[in-house]
Amino acid sequence: MLIHPERLFPADPATRKIAKGLYEQVRSLPLISPHGHTHAAWFARNDPFPDPAKLFVQPDHYVFRMLYSQGVSLEELEIGQENLSESRKVWGIFAKHYYLFRGTPTRMWLDFAFQELFGLEERLRERTADLYFDTISEKLSTPEFLPRALYERFHLEVLATTDSPLDSLDHHKAIRDSDWKARIIPTFRPDPVVDPDFDGFAENVARLGEKAGEDTSSWNGYLKALRFARDRFRELGCTATDHGHPTARTADLSDGEYAALFRRIVAGTADAQGKELFRAQMLTEMARMSLEDGLVMQIHPGSARNHNRKLHEKYGRDVGADIPTRTGYVDALRPLLDRYGNERDLTIILFTLDESTYSRELAPLAGHYPCLRLGPPWWFHDSPEGMLRFREHVTETAGFYNTVGFNDDTRAFLSIPARHDMARRMDCSFLAKLVVEHRLEEDEAVEVARDLAYNLVKKAYRL
Amino acid sequence: MLIHPERLFPADPATRKIAKGLYEQVRSLPLISPHGHTHAAWFARNDPFPDPAKLFVQPDHYVFRMLYSQGVSLEELEIGQENLSESRKVWGIFAKHYYLFRGTPTRMWLDFAFQELFGLEERLRERTADLYFDTISEKLSTPEFLPRALYERFHLEVLATTDSPLDSLDHHKAIRDSDWKARIIPTFRPDPVVDPDFDGFAENVARLGEKAGEDTSSWNGYLKALRFARDRFRELGCTATDHGHPTARTADLSDGEYAALFRRIVAGTADAQGKELFRAQMLTEMARMSLEDGLVMQIHPGSARNHNRKLHEKYGRDVGADIPTRTGYVDALRPLLDRYGNERDLTIILFTLDESTYSRELAPLAGHYPCLRLGPPWWFHDSPEGMLRFREHVTETAGFYNTVGFNDDTRAFLSIPARHDMARRMDCSFLAKLVVEHRLEEDEAVEVARDLAYNLVKKAYRL
Amino acid sequence: MLIHPERLFPADPATRKIAKGLYEQVRSLPLISPHGHTHAAWFARNDPFPDPAKLFVQPDHYVFRMLYSQGVSLEELEIGQENLSESRKVWGIFAKHYYLFRGTPTRMWLDFAFQELFGLEERLRERTADLYFDTISEKLSTPEFLPRALYERFHLEVLATTDSPLDSLDHHKAIRDSDWKARIIPTFRPDPVVDPDFDGFAENVARLGEKAGEDTSSWNGYLKALRFARDRFRELGCTATDHGHPTARTADLSDGEYAALFRRIVAGTADAQGKELFRAQMLTEMARMSLEDGLVMQIHPGSARNHNRKLHEKYGRDVGADIPTRTGYVDALRPLLDRYGNERDLTIILFTLDESTYSRELAPLAGHYPCLRLGPPWWFHDSPEGMLRFREHVTETAGFYNTVGFNDDTRAFLSIPARHDMARRMDCSFLAKLVVEHRLEEDEAVEVARDLAYNLVKKAYRL
Repeated sequence: MLIHPERLFPADPATRKIAKGLYEQVRSLPLISPHGHTHAAWFARNDPFPDPAKLFVQPDHYVFRMLYSQGVSLEELEIGQENLSESRKVWGIFAKHYYLFRGTPTRMWLDFAFQELFGLEERLRERTADLYFDTISEKLSTPEFLPRALYERFHLEVLATTDSPLDSLDHHKAIRDSDWKARIIPTFRPDPVVDPDFDGFAENVARLGEKAGEDTSSWNGYLKALRFARDRFRELGCTATDHGHPTARTADLSDGEYAALFRRIVAGTADAQGKELFRAQMLTEMARMSLEDGLVMQIHPGSARNHNRKLHEKYGRDVGADIPTRTGYVDALRPLLDRYGNERDLTIILFTLDESTYSRELAPLAGHYPCLRLGPPWWFHDSPEGMLRFREHVTETAGFYNTVGFNDDTRAFLSIPARHDMARRMDCSFLAKLVVEHRLEEDEAVEVARDLAYNLVKKAYRL
Repeated sequence: MLIHPERLFPADPATRKIAKGLYEQVRSLPLISPHGHTHAAWFARNDPFPDPAKLFVQPDHYVFRMLYSQGVSLEELEIGQENLSESRKVWGIFAKHYYLFRGTPTRMWLDFAFQELFGLEERLRERTADLYFDTISEKLSTPEFLPRALYERFHLEVLATTDSPLDSLDHHKAIRDSDWKARIIPTFRPDPVVDPDFDGFAENVARLGEKAGEDTSSWNGYLKALRFARDRFRELGCTATDHGHPTARTADLSDGEYAALFRRIVAGTADAQGKELFRAQMLTEMARMSLEDGLVMQIHPGSARNHNRKLHEKYGRDVGADIPTRTGYVDALRPLLDRYGNERDLTIILFTLDESTYSRELAPLAGHYPCLRLGPPWWFHDSPEGMLRFREHVTETAGFYNTVGFNDDTRAFLSIPARHDMARRMDCSFLAKLVVEHRLEEDEAVEVARDLAYNLVKKAYRL
Repeated sequence: MLIHPERLFPADPATRKIAKGLYEQVRSLPLISPHGHTHAAWFARNDPFPDPAKLFVQPDHYVFRMLYSQGVSLEELEIGQENLSESRKVWGIFAKHYYLFRGTPTRMWLDFAFQELFGLEERLRERTADLYFDTISEKLSTPEFLPRALYERFHLEVLATTDSPLDSLDHHKAIRDSDWKARIIPTFRPDPVVDPDFDGFAENVARLGEKAGEDTSSWNGYLKALRFARDRFRELGCTATDHGHPTARTADLSDGEYAALFRRIVAGTADAQGKELFRAQMLTEMARMSLEDGLVMQIHPGSARNHNRKLHEKYGRDVGADIPTRTGYVDALRPLLDRYGNERDLTIILFTLDESTYSRELAPLAGHYPCLRLGPPWWFHDSPEGMLRFREHVTETAGFYNTVGFNDDTRAFLSIPARHDMARRMDCSFLAKLVVEHRLEEDEAVEVARDLAYNLVKKAYRL
């Protein structure tokens, strides 16, 4: 067996028993996936997923960054190739290096999928590489493994994608207009049109205007075009925006100031500071629009994108070379909070890659401001130890009810059940410790476990 | 039962047994409260405490910040009103939202007081709100619940308040001159007269001079007036000063420099940098005076006060909107330490809201400089997990004997026994782990437990 | 008994059993000590070690910094005196204050040496001071306690010292040319000739040139002299360099820029920024040379050396007054990584004193760049809790195979077995937790335990 029924529960027998009991209460609750990077096209087209390497290795930067760190080249893994020429060979390299993932969540997610979905029970290694390749390939060609079938098998209730304001959303429309009843919704991620450093920014802004019939060379036209785009998303069920800025900085400029800044931005004459200030101002603008139209804001700051210059030049974005940076929230969010912090109708969900901010900044902020909620441990911290640290650092100041349940944030559709299962097990383990140490009573722990697994996410994301 | 006799002890049976054994050695030791925000007036007047909402909700920013974060308005809670018009209603709102405190120390402190002081054993919730309100109201009117009776019941040996240099200290005098024998002493907190950003700073400095018969428009007169005020506090038993600066920055200017700086400060022409430099220099001046008069210094840096601008404008200070900030000690303290760091007759107790400094900066500094000691986990970190992290991060470099026992730091008099009890349980839990892992022998753990609960605080604060 | 056979293993019986089982697999593996501060002279001369105080107190800044922090003066400890006048008295002071080390790794290292090497089984305290002094003194005069005998008794396979490029390495040569077969190798630590703030920098650079027959007043001559010195080290078995810079900053200047900068450095006209830039550039130059000659780089940034000005003036370096500082890697390493980050033939081992960088910066960087590996927890973090935190923060992102096993980094030769034993116990404890929580299977844990104790260090340091 690759995965054990009692995995991730604490060793102490009394604590483990309570954790298991709590987990039994939540294990079968539907999955809500309010933030992630799957593609609506998969479900609109319902084509079979491709071969094992294309499914598990190529799209998963958690996987290939580890292989790369140990000397496997991206050429060997055929990263960046649309069609793998030697996918069995790529799979073999992966299998041979699978021991590198010992002690990582990636290993546990993969083993979950291998066993639960594909019935594999022997460990992946060089010797079993072909067995895996053949078994997975075969299953992928069956109807049970089509995207829609898997969506249902995973017991998904909502699945949100992440989309550019320039996206046609045609696949979302196709799903909506189909006979298939599933709630797959877009998320409004405006980085391509609000971040002057984004590839093709000027062109993106122009296209945003065309789509809306607005002149985006003026501040007013630009804002109108953004509102138009948000409405387009909302019509297809979108309930949230997402903002992946380098920092959490916000601004609250006067009319004259932002109009002048916008002119420099559009003209391409703004320097680095001006661009940062523009992003900062745009977070406040987005908060203003959220108050109008009810979209929940998500702020994901603090990733130094494309840190590996040579790989970026050769392979582009998302090749496992984004590195977290020190991030501050207390001063950075002040302008936005000065303006809208006390609004009870606004919800802003904060994420971080800098765990030192959990107890120092994020829990105190979220434990005070009515508009703030804390997103789950993100990216590198979406892991057993990361989840424990999150609860241990955040709960005593912000409680459970200023957090918003789990996000799988995945590009790997097949990992969704494994990730939610891990989160549920870790939350139940944390709660069990509180119970066994008489810091919380068991009936309350059951209620909290269900809230963390299901209720809080629906409420926070207005689903 | 709201609280369990084995609460907070580790789950593992062997460890729990040792923790309980250690706790039995310290549970009944007298309480020393060397730092807090109770009022001498309560004990001078010995009037009954007011109704439940006024006692538990209104003054406790831990309580109402959590309610506020979840959409309860300060108006509903009647914050800022001298007399509550509908205290039963306020209590009802609190009871209805009591589930928000699950997993927080506030919940454990409150349950302790509810059960141990008021004999309540059913959980607080909407249904039991009136039962609580009536029970507490009734008891508060009995002689056993008068401030002096509670002081004795709590087995307090010393209780320090925190006071402005402008305070008349009349209530302290009244206690001293009364028949009642209790050690309630002031702490010298000069922020109102050394922090140029403090409300009414210029007027405060002038009043400081009047009280001392000194001209505080000159640097010498100002220092003399401060010495005068310190002496006034010392006469009433004060053994410590307290400094709540935004940062830990210190300075060691030349005579000419600080005289010139002081002139700008008094004239109100100093900019933000000048004000920061003045606070920095004043820490060094306070250290100099401490060497003369023996007062122990406490430095509490790193809180961004009044972060919520609108609430500050409407309700003033201390409404739950102070947020910790990143804090540095290594460079900041250097000027003071260059001057006085090797003085064995000086004691400076450092606190932090930035836990990342525990192992990186504070433990290494306190494990070297003879004048430095580490205060207990502060404010948001005065919690079970916070206490464990403190010991885990600090002990291996600074040992136990460079720490100073517990501070309750509370405005909520009734929470004092609960807070000390939590600290004793957590320290015994930490020590039990060391014993069960054969990192410390049991006879030594007993000695350390008693030192942490009682001896170290007396020594550090010179009580 | 001072030390318990099950020390440091987790309390939970099932976990402890697994930890013990893993430890049995690694306890007897040879010791590899690839980074430390012992002296080749000890082994070249093979003279007896001096008396107890000279051996355990005087050279160990972990020991005397703690005593100093509690008011023992360096005069009383006769620090800085070549020959102790009253070594029994110094030992007595140490014994009397031995309780200060409760809960520290120093205590565990010392107890290990006292019991395992000297057969002492009663605790060190005032009453047993003479017993200890006499027992240790007597044993030190026996042949079994000569340096070479201890080297063999410790089961050392490799022992690296740390040496200036100006060192003659005569002692290393003497060992090589002796009949005694031991692998004691130098490490190239160029700080004295690449850090313009190092005492005697200009003279050091001149001497570097003389030794190599190069004119080090020119950039080319300087680089050639460095290459010459590296070759000299490599001939004596050196496989690594070591860099103790204040920060992790690197640079990649153009030819013209660094030639101009070098002129200012040599002329002594560079300001603080220029010096920092020079150190930054030199890390990149060292990486370039490492690609040529195969030496592994170690970067140890982030210590504020000689923080206590008065002690530095009186006693010089290494008196327990080096304090960690906040350290950043993401931007700091970028110039070097832009140039050489993707080289699979380069190995750079990163260390930190800032634990907040483990999960935020170091694990993500090492989990991506092929040239990067993470050194073990360093200095203040070379402790049970420090080791656990390292694994907990690093493993989920970087795995085990981007780490490099243990460094004892010690000046105290007799502590080497205790330190490696502690590391092996803590790694086995960490692995046991993964096994008992079904996050790793037991056969894999055995393999990882052996890799962490023995294989990874040989591979990383190319031994």
